[in-house]
Amino acid sequence: MANFKGHALPGSCFLLLGLCWSLKYPLRHCWRKRQPQGRPKLPQFFNRIDLVEGAIMIFLSFVGIMAEQFVPDGPHAHLYNREANAWVKLMNWQHSTMYLFFLICGIVKVLTTSSLPVPPGLDRLALSLAFFMEGFLFYFHVHMRPHLDTHIHSLLFVAVFGSAASTLLEVFMRDNIILEILRTSLTILQGTWFFQIGFVLYPLNGVEWDLEAHDNVMFITMCFCWHLAVDLLIVATNYCMAWCCVQRYVVRGCDMEIGMRKTSSSQKALLQESDEE
Amino acid sequence: MANFKGHALPGSCFLLLGLCWSLKYPLRHCWRKRQPQGRPKLPQFFNRIDLVEGAIMIFLSFVGIMAEQFVPDGPHAHLYNREANAWVKLMNWQHSTMYLFFLICGIVKVLTTSSLPVPPGLDRLALSLAFFMEGFLFYFHVHMRPHLDTHIHSLLFVAVFGSAASTLLEVFMRDNIILEILRTSLTILQGTWFFQIGFVLYPLNGVEWDLEAHDNVMFITMCFCWHLAVDLLIVATNYCMAWCCVQRYVVRGCDMEIGMRKTSSSQKALLQESDEE
Amino acid sequence: MANFKGHALPGSCFLLLGLCWSLKYPLRHCWRKRQPQGRPKLPQFFNRIDLVEGAIMIFLSFVGIMAEQFVPDGPHAHLYNREANAWVKLMNWQHSTMYLFFLICGIVKVLTTSSLPVPPGLDRLALSLAFFMEGFLFYFHVHMRPHLDTHIHSLLFVAVFGSAASTLLEVFMRDNIILEILRTSLTILQGTWFFQIGFVLYPLNGVEWDLEAHDNVMFITMCFCWHLAVDLLIVATNYCMAWCCVQRYVVRGCDMEIGMRKTSSSQKALLQESDEE
Amino acid sequence: MANFKGHALPGSCFLLLGLCWSLKYPLRHCWRKRQPQGRPKLPQFFNRIDLVEGAIMIFLSFVGIMAEQFVPDGPHAHLYNREANAWVKLMNWQHSTMYLFFLICGIVKVLTTSSLPVPPGLDRLALSLAFFMEGFLFYFHVHMRPHLDTHIHSLLFVAVFGSAASTLLEVFMRDNIILEILRTSLTILQGTWFFQIGFVLYPLNGVEWDLEAHDNVMFITMCFCWHLAVDLLIVATNYCMAWCCVQRYVVRGCDMEIGMRKTSSSQKALLQESDEE
Repeated sequence: MANFKGHALPGSCFLLLGLCWSLKYPLRHCWRKRQPQGRPKLPQFFNRIDLVEGAIMIFLSFVGIMAEQFVPDGPHAHLYNREANAWVKLMNWQHSTMYLFFLICGIVKVLTTSSLPVPPGLDRLALSLAFFMEGFLFYFHVHMRPHLDTHIHSLLFVAVFGSAASTLLEVFMRDNIILEILRTSLTILQGTWFFQIGFVLYPLNGVEWDLEAHDNVMFITMCFCWHLAVDLLIVATNYCMAWCCVQRYVVRGCDMEIGMRKTSSSQKALLQESDEE
Repeated sequence: MANFKGHALPGSCFLLLGLCWSLKYPLRHCWRKRQPQGRPKLPQFFNRIDLVEGAIMIFLSFVGIMAEQFVPDGPHAHLYNREANAWVKLMNWQHSTMYLFFLICGIVKVLTTSSLPVPPGLDRLALSLAFFMEGFLFYFHVHMRPHLDTHIHSLLFVAVFGSAASTLLEVFMRDNIILEILRTSLTILQGTWFFQIGFVLYPLNGVEWDLEAHDNVMFITMCFCWHLAVDLLIVATNYCMAWCCVQRYVVRGCDMEIGMRKTSSSQKALLQESDEE
Repeated sequence: MANFKGHALPGSCFLLLGLCWSLKYPLRHCWRKRQPQGRPKLPQFFNRIDLVEGAIMIFLSFVGIMAEQFVPDGPHAHLYNREANAWVKLMNWQHSTMYLFFLICGIVKVLTTSSLPVPPGLDRLALSLAFFMEGFLFYFHVHMRPHLDTHIHSLLFVAVFGSAASTLLEVFMRDNIILEILRTSLTILQGTWFFQIGFVLYPLNGVEWDLEAHDNVMFITMCFCWHLAVDLLIVATNYCMAWCCVQRYVVRGCDMEIGMRKTSSSQKALLQESDEE
Repeated sequence: MANFKGHALPGSCFLLLGLCWSLKYPLRHCWRKRQPQGRPKLPQFFNRIDLVEGAIMIFLSFVGIMAEQFVPDGPHAHLYNREANAWVKLMNWQHSTMYLFFLICGIVKVLTTSSLPVPPGLDRLALSLAFFMEGFLFYFHVHMRPHLDTHIHSLLFVAVFGSAASTLLEVFMRDNIILEILRTSLTILQGTWFFQIGFVLYPLNGVEWDLEAHDNVMFITMCFCWHLAVDLLIVATNYCMAWCCVQRYVVRGCDMEIGMRKTSSSQKALLQESDEE
């Protein structure tokens, strides 16, 4: 869908996903750090968030595939037109393929939250693959276009392949908050940059950009850096919010618990004795 | 062998290898996870599979080398024709060289299963090298061909160098199921993609593809993604099968064993005492 | 600022930063190694150095941004000239953007030294990002210039991306002295190379270099290696100085301490007993 | 020195270095594995080998630098000819620079074997840097030459950058036998490939190669693979020899030692008692 909406849709998805992550991961990290040593288990709450995240990913990817196929000027699930001896709307098919890998990623995510014996880290591998496939298809997507068009899409590669690489690292270093923050920032960057691409190539105010001017290319390069700076600010703000939130609720919870523990310590001692037998 | 068979042969080899791995690694992983902590040793069975795998690799590589050398239009082990002042059938020689490194890999694999002091991980290094050499030779193989021909071979690089990189990682992270699944998927991808190359460049139904059309290039790029998606599905299915299989046999075996243990526990206690002396 | 000063300013900054690091890291490393096992904590002194370093980074980056914006021929915070329909002084804006990421890095550094729950390693990630953004902007900066100009800037990439990569590794391997030495050397290399670029492109003695001669390109390549060799020598010298320094003061301190310990050992034993109760 | 000798000299150096390593590392590895758990310390012998290796490296690099400077058609330590306004023999200067980094590497190696507090792994970093600098200078060395000349030098990059990368890994994974074998193989490959370059570009039998023929490029690519295969065979043979050697001497030594131990066990028990006091 070569129009503003076609860029706003994936942009919104990535933005939503990134913002969700920018709250989830700091919350989980701060929760873990606030907990006393003896209780490393996360509350069920975080598992449920993962489930919801996977479900939303499946839903959005499915919507994406359907939208690309069945918009009025879409291929309507036809791949090859035998009469014209030509492929039908390959652009839309490629977009559908991109969504397909995020769909797979969502399914793996949901399976991971279940009790099935999915190897740990498989959801990160699926996500890394989805990002990689997105970049891979984009790479062969942007040939033979005007200079600025190619350039603005190429900048997306930095975010996409950066995400793919950092998520691949997460397969081996799970629950590393630094990598999670990096992935979150790069995902938000993808989101905001999709909007920027939409604004530049299909300007809403009707003033067309000169797609061959070197100055525009220079500005867009710099603009990408500003996007990243703003996205880092958003992630930092959400991290602070998550920390304050955990600080308030966990401390209160702990106080209550400590109170409860004192009263029940004699009972526990009895229970432990019976457990150990 | 620039015909359909010349692509179907390596394709079948990689497909066979990948399918074999897609059962072996999940079986081994699930077996390990089902075992009680105190018995981390794998049954002899898995060692024997490795031996068979190495032997088959040696055999297939040897067949490959011989086939490339002694097909009717092959070089018949002649490298340089002094009369014509020309190299003889370098294409076949290059293919033989590719097989050579898989032959080395097979030999290392067989040695690893023996009781010789082969450093752990050497078989993965040899495999990584074999994949790397395959990609390396292909890289200088595809110059000066039509656009689609170059492109369809280039896509193979993604699978080949991906395999090489993930196998290299395995040298340092041995028995990581995620990496093994990744390598398996990429190997099956190589297998199916070799068939795809054969179908496109030497179509069986006789309808030639336009090797310069941009649309064909776009379709092939997307097709590569679909291959990967299907290969992931195959690996996932085999993983499930392996899990069910281990679930059934190990659980039954454990029950039997537990029964046997109870009857023999007094005898074992006696044996242990004599061992410790 | 396309003149000698515009290259001397960042060159001095990097040189200062690198020299500071070339003393700080060896000092810290030697201090740690000299300490008896039971006292791994660093003195407050090193924390304070980090704070000062962060503050200087913020200050210099801020000065850099202001200088680029408000020099007489700068953009004075104007980005787009609506009358001329043109971007204003994009070169200066790009330089400001580079400084911006070092500003962010300085802020993260200061936050890390505070008692706030900043995830460990975030300061290295911010630094890596700052280096990466510097290289990224330079990459699209040097198009369409004379051969030697492009080449001399390209060599900078080796130092910049090398720094970015080695700093990224430090996120996962914190306090690894080898990586810290590598980063220090590459930062000093950036510093001296900025000066070299200034000397070549805007020669102080007025003798212009032939920017298209192949021999000059060859010399500059080699010159880069010599810079690295000299920088390694500087780092090695500072490492020796730091070691001698720690050797002298720690040993003396230890002797004093041992003396004090002997006299107070009986008191400590009493204290420990009361602590353990 | 653009003649056969100019390629045979570095070729011999690398070959010598590689062959030395192909005995040293397996010997050390097998020694370690044969030793009983309680005695992980290596005999002084291996430290002395490192010292000799470093000294030889320094000597050969120094000879290399001197040879490049003071051969009859060398620059004789003149860098710039003010009269002709031209650089003097930059090719020789570049070769000298390459040797310089191996000289640095040798110095670091010697320092590492001393009792000075050199951070562990610094010798690998210096070696990695030396390989990287060699590749870096070669990269800008081979512009504007005939096709085969460029290609045959480019293949060297695979070996050189491969060595640099694997040695860089060794900084973090010290004494990993797999990485040491890889580095050894790639160093021998460099050695034999330098000879191959000499044979192709300056043929001893006087029959010139056609430097533009595509077939020659294809053959050379394949030839590189064969070199690697042969080098792997050499390394494997030396590994076997080292293993047999350790097997024979250590086992004999152990037997002797066990005999000695039995007779002296009563004395040792007495000594230990006095040590523990």
